[in-house]
Amino acid sequence: MDRIETPPDVVIRRLPLYARSLRYLLQEDVRSVSSQELGERINVTAAQIRKDLSYFGEFGKQGIGYDVEKLLNQIERILGLNQEWPVGLIGIGHLGEAIARYEGFRRQGIRIAALFDSDPNKIGTDINGLTIQDDTHIERAMREQGVKLAIIAVPATRAQEVADMLVSAGVRAILNYAPMVIQVPENVWVRHIDPVAVLHSMTYYLAREEDKES
Amino acid sequence: MDRIETPPDVVIRRLPLYARSLRYLLQEDVRSVSSQELGERINVTAAQIRKDLSYFGEFGKQGIGYDVEKLLNQIERILGLNQEWPVGLIGIGHLGEAIARYEGFRRQGIRIAALFDSDPNKIGTDINGLTIQDDTHIERAMREQGVKLAIIAVPATRAQEVADMLVSAGVRAILNYAPMVIQVPENVWVRHIDPVAVLHSMTYYLAREEDKES
Repeated sequence: MDRIETPPDVVIRRLPLYARSLRYLLQEDVRSVSSQELGERINVTAAQIRKDLSYFGEFGKQGIGYDVEKLLNQIERILGLNQEWPVGLIGIGHLGEAIARYEGFRRQGIRIAALFDSDPNKIGTDINGLTIQDDTHIERAMREQGVKLAIIAVPATRAQEVADMLVSAGVRAILNYAPMVIQVPENVWVRHIDPVAVLHSMTYYLAREEDKES
Repeated sequence: MDRIETPPDVVIRRLPLYARSLRYLLQEDVRSVSSQELGERINVTAAQIRKDLSYFGEFGKQGIGYDVEKLLNQIERILGLNQEWPVGLIGIGHLGEAIARYEGFRRQGIRIAALFDSDPNKIGTDINGLTIQDDTHIERAMREQGVKLAIIAVPATRAQEVADMLVSAGVRAILNYAPMVIQVPENVWVRHIDPVAVLHSMTYYLAREEDKES
């Protein structure tokens, strides 16, 4: 009984959260978990987890739950994490430096492989053994290393220009920290991280509460 | 014809993106915009924009489009951005420091008002004129300043402990950068920013492409 339905993107976005929780369970030496227990850890219902996983085959046994290590391995394989992904990071300001120094990537299949900036004072200096390169070299350097993933941490005014260089370099997926929507061809994936927008989506609720109180 | 329907959270999450695009349009001196044009800037359909805004009343005129400045003011008022929101930031590592130094908050209704860390070498030092405080003082300091919003940028192992302190301090909304789901009471909002999970949701697509090519 094969299912050939394509999983919606919202399901793909949840898989890494399942994987992360399973990794914690494994660290805690938990070997088996029900969809109920897994769901509580990530605020998703048990039914949702079962439905999400059903796109990818049969996992777990009714009444027994999932084998934590096995399910983690399966999800990591689905996400392509049975290999390491080199990533180019463009923009080494405060945020870029924090990203370059973040230890959490390496343990989870992501390797920051190239750093770029346009500031002559930064170009040629090292972070964690990687030399910051002139960002006019993005295309050559990324192609040489076969890098398909990039993180943009430049100011909004430069984001589109950098995105264009990345697309020319053959990059197929971009994580964009610049507070600016970038335009890319249809075959390039873009996700956006924007803390201001996230905070504003919560001030909405706080402001309503204040109105009620006053 | 009043609509009293409560807007779903997904709509609330999109409002800040509309506001951001309208701010750019205003900077470019664009005075009027159609839902079509606005939609193209944020990869949302015109119909979606009209539906989202319909939760909050009547905006724009058929065939004329929206007055950019007026719509921006209305959305900012809906999001509670006609006031400034003080925010407590806990964890002043590389990421926390980048957040503390980020200029983009202040221009958009967010003021980093208090910094906390547990490292004796950091406590007492200044960033942008704010002194890093001992994080055991969170409850007193946040209450004194009436801070309802907080950003967690501590390691995963400390995130829940810090979240508990914030809840005790009366914080009602938390932006969590720690790679860990935190448990809070129902009346507290939490949003999560996790770059590893975001990257993993794209490696899925890249891995599938490689499979096709090989």
